Amino acid sequence: MVFSKIQLKLITSLSQKKYRIKHHLFMVEGIKGVQEFLNSKFEIFQLFTSEELLFLEVENRVVISEKDLKKISNLKNPNKVVALFKIPKENLIIKEGLIVALDEVNDPGNLGTIIRLCDWFGVNQLVCSENTVDCFNPKVVQASMGSLARVSIIYTDLEKYLQEIQIQKFATIMNGESIYKTKLPKNGVIIMGNEANGISDEILNLVTNKITIPRFGKQQQTESLNVATATAIILNEFKRNN
Amino acid sequence: MVFSKIQLKLITSLSQKKYRIKHHLFMVEGIKGVQEFLNSKFEIFQLFTSEELLFLEVENRVVISEKDLKKISNLKNPNKVVALFKIPKENLIIKEGLIVALDEVNDPGNLGTIIRLCDWFGVNQLVCSENTVDCFNPKVVQASMGSLARVSIIYTDLEKYLQEIQIQKFATIMNGESIYKTKLPKNGVIIMGNEANGISDEILNLVTNKITIPRFGKQQQTESLNVATATAIILNEFKRNN
Repeated sequence: MVFSKIQLKLITSLSQKKYRIKHHLFMVEGIKGVQEFLNSKFEIFQLFTSEELLFLEVENRVVISEKDLKKISNLKNPNKVVALFKIPKENLIIKEGLIVALDEVNDPGNLGTIIRLCDWFGVNQLVCSENTVDCFNPKVVQASMGSLARVSIIYTDLEKYLQEIQIQKFATIMNGESIYKTKLPKNGVIIMGNEANGISDEILNLVTNKITIPRFGKQQQTESLNVATATAIILNEFKRNN
Repeated sequence: MVFSKIQLKLITSLSQKKYRIKHHLFMVEGIKGVQEFLNSKFEIFQLFTSEELLFLEVENRVVISEKDLKKISNLKNPNKVVALFKIPKENLIIKEGLIVALDEVNDPGNLGTIIRLCDWFGVNQLVCSENTVDCFNPKVVQASMGSLARVSIIYTDLEKYLQEIQIQKFATIMNGESIYKTKLPKNGVIIMGNEANGISDEILNLVTNKITIPRFGKQQQTESLNVATATAIILNEFKRNN
């Protein structure tokens, strides 16, 4: 199969959400990442490689030049392979277990890191508000390091979702109860907010517990933790106690 | 004072380490970040703003056009001010208290996030191996969100530093003792490694404790946590127990 201009146009268009939705496709780069998606429930659409890489057992493969690879890659140093996978139909909505809910997380690196954390800590579901950055954004896929292939993620009306579920809902805010003093249950929803504005008032009205990571710095000027590092600490606290 | 081509050249050169060393200057962007450095021990060299911003009390200021601001900024959407601060002489080397040591952390975003964590958790010193990314790199400055103005950072021969200090040295690795089972002291060195290769053998030989963050995911495929989120979890564990 030959690499055509139409293919080039298709692939580069996938850095925009509207074209990912239109084509039901997203892009994964690098041997390791592609392997993880091949070993998952995701379905491959097409594979583009600059070397044969026959150990990647994919029928629909196109060997392309280094130059073409550079054209379709989002990385400074492309790593031999770019693959297109099909965006699956929406996952079933899970309403129990340990759940992480994001209220308008905007930064792709943060979302990717949080997906990796959900994978590590065995979170049952990641629920994203509709205005959270798209998980198939190439920068999210890259930052999630393959964990995207394993974590169940849904995008939904977060307010409605929280109204409908019966388990405890924890909001991480600046002046809640210390996580060291709060009794954390095995199951619950951990809600994390927007990088600049935190959790919206509508969502805060629905929570059962407001929790805080204590600050130890002398100067009391550190404004907040990054949302991904805060998620790491909270998830660790839930797991260490159960 | 008028904005000259020589100034433009000086400022843009500061994105490279060799010119930061040559001029003993680094760059801070945005009103909030600049304010935090003005309120710190750092000494201002020159301030460039697209608006008057008289509340920033700096003598050596140059009002420039939006267009010129865009030229000197590293951000997509420059936030009104770029300031040059003097790189201070090396900090005194601290050898007690709670210390974080980095063995070749390469990603500027990771270092910036770790600096922010050190600020939050009141870490006494951040020690970086000489091949760790420079803390005055613009991306590090940006990601540290002003915490760089408050955290004591040194770059040194990490092997020698660790040989010379007498407190417990903790290496975070994949197959050490669970952090939930290890007795963590109030003071100690927490060593974190390179994003791809972890901690080098020379450094591992010097540690007193090898510790691990337990993994809970079912599928046991998540390879590792991001170094900044791992640092967040370990620092939280040290602090919660003391």
